[in-house]
Amino acid sequence: MVIKGETLEQKARQLLKERGVEVEDLAELVMFLQKSYIDDLDLAACLENVNSVLSKREVQNAIITGIQLDILAEKKQLLQPLQEILEVDEGLYGIDEILALSIVNVYGSIGFTNYGYIDKVKPGILAKLNSHEGPQVHTFLDDIVGAIAAAAASRLAHSQPDKSDITK
Amino acid sequence: MVIKGETLEQKARQLLKERGVEVEDLAELVMFLQKSYIDDLDLAACLENVNSVLSKREVQNAIITGIQLDILAEKKQLLQPLQEILEVDEGLYGIDEILALSIVNVYGSIGFTNYGYIDKVKPGILAKLNSHEGPQVHTFLDDIVGAIAAAAASRLAHSQPDKSDITK
Amino acid sequence: MVIKGETLEQKARQLLKERGVEVEDLAELVMFLQKSYIDDLDLAACLENVNSVLSKREVQNAIITGIQLDILAEKKQLLQPLQEILEVDEGLYGIDEILALSIVNVYGSIGFTNYGYIDKVKPGILAKLNSHEGPQVHTFLDDIVGAIAAAAASRLAHSQPDKSDITK
Amino acid sequence: MVIKGETLEQKARQLLKERGVEVEDLAELVMFLQKSYIDDLDLAACLENVNSVLSKREVQNAIITGIQLDILAEKKQLLQPLQEILEVDEGLYGIDEILALSIVNVYGSIGFTNYGYIDKVKPGILAKLNSHEGPQVHTFLDDIVGAIAAAAASRLAHSQPDKSDITK
Repeated sequence: MVIKGETLEQKARQLLKERGVEVEDLAELVMFLQKSYIDDLDLAACLENVNSVLSKREVQNAIITGIQLDILAEKKQLLQPLQEILEVDEGLYGIDEILALSIVNVYGSIGFTNYGYIDKVKPGILAKLNSHEGPQVHTFLDDIVGAIAAAAASRLAHSQPDKSDITK
Repeated sequence: MVIKGETLEQKARQLLKERGVEVEDLAELVMFLQKSYIDDLDLAACLENVNSVLSKREVQNAIITGIQLDILAEKKQLLQPLQEILEVDEGLYGIDEILALSIVNVYGSIGFTNYGYIDKVKPGILAKLNSHEGPQVHTFLDDIVGAIAAAAASRLAHSQPDKSDITK
Repeated sequence: MVIKGETLEQKARQLLKERGVEVEDLAELVMFLQKSYIDDLDLAACLENVNSVLSKREVQNAIITGIQLDILAEKKQLLQPLQEILEVDEGLYGIDEILALSIVNVYGSIGFTNYGYIDKVKPGILAKLNSHEGPQVHTFLDDIVGAIAAAAASRLAHSQPDKSDITK
Repeated sequence: MVIKGETLEQKARQLLKERGVEVEDLAELVMFLQKSYIDDLDLAACLENVNSVLSKREVQNAIITGIQLDILAEKKQLLQPLQEILEVDEGLYGIDEILALSIVNVYGSIGFTNYGYIDKVKPGILAKLNSHEGPQVHTFLDDIVGAIAAAAASRLAHSQPDKSDITK
């Protein structure tokens, strides 16, 4: 028995939306990463690449698992000390980065650099997710969002090899 | 704020025990992997290497997160379709392997082969965890257990470079 | 400037052939890995999945780089101690496994297990590559071959989700 | 037969030096990454962590293999199209990032972010290595240097858990 791909994709997209991330936010992160390399890049092309990333089973599984852990942390339903680690987004945890890497990997190693960069600079939606205000927990979501954008940028680079200069 | 290393290690060891995995079970898996390469290998040396692996923060975080997801699946507290994916240990899920890899990586890439091998052959405790009988869910735990054994085998190989022949 | 995909693929396929690996050998490894899970699996389907793996740029880059290092080791053109490490296929080297993982990753983490298993059991062409007889060096090639087969098996599993049970 | 650890470490350090990278350059990159998180950080502490990273066998193997490929590319001794890919540091190659990741991984996934960031911003020695002027090829070296610094920053964060906030 295997869950249908459509069911997984629908759930992954629904969870992103419920947690405050629109596909347009993701497209804007791709634009941020690639605009200086591809002259005539528009948001529609960025969105198309985001949608391709979201159609991958590995990505859907990482989204659903990570957001599930964020939600459980918000509801205080996790065992200690995992509960506290996720609530404070502890810097030495690392499992959020590991899930993110599995997303980045979908379009190869050239996305690692963009993932690390965007996670540090935190443009657009990433700043909002990282404000650590209020009761919301986005320990996994912020890394997942950066990883989706990095993977979409890699796909864009692969599709326009002569225009992009992704890792230089 | 960072959780104390002792707290994390204690919790990781307690969870393994509660879920039916003794450190001796892990030592026996290391013996299974390395006995044909190291002539005078005894269980005490295997156990020492297992304990070293369990002292690593990345390993502790992976254990705690994976077992937490197994427990929540048993209690039917996960969102669909994640609940069903974990209950049936779905072959295309992959997040269990990703967490396992983060454990194997602790002593380098030479452990990948042993992890894959033991996960397929399922000696000792791994057969028991994989029986898929009754209401228990060990979707993450069986991969974690194989990964701890593979990492301990790598450590052993690094410590006795002239005796072992780990990846040949 | 970016090398054309066709050029890369042609070179990767040519190098595999020159080093003694036919696509049929790769298809047989996929058959070995998947025949017990997919009832009506034939070699043509295995071959199709091998060809898909070989069409990926990351895979081509890993093949070309790894085989290049094997060839240079055979010609004794590497610096010491790298020369000796590759000549004897040293167990603690690990860079061969890292390149292999980048191939396996192309179809996600579910391939790790198959990669480790096949690398240990060494069916078909893998036994031949690993004989360590004569002046030939296949330190990278044997891991690359196992990784291509594992990635093709993952692709097969993704394409027939209800038949395969790849990581159980 | 296994190469002695001392031989490997000596060669890795010698190659870094010959290619224009001093351990002090690496320590300065660590300082760049961590100074805003650890108040009283000095260069001596950064250097100590760099030296620890350089004492790891996986790191030494990655350094020696990567620099060997750079040197061969400078001497125009590689097969086409690999020769051209390395000469121009092609953005879609990805094997340089893969080797770098194997270094970053030595102290866990929390280093991914720093690696990506430093590789994009290119402070200190990284700007020099990336100038792409003259006949020198540093396609692997620049990623290796960033990875050593990121791994050393991770080690620093693990050793001072309450002061650092490495991935936030």
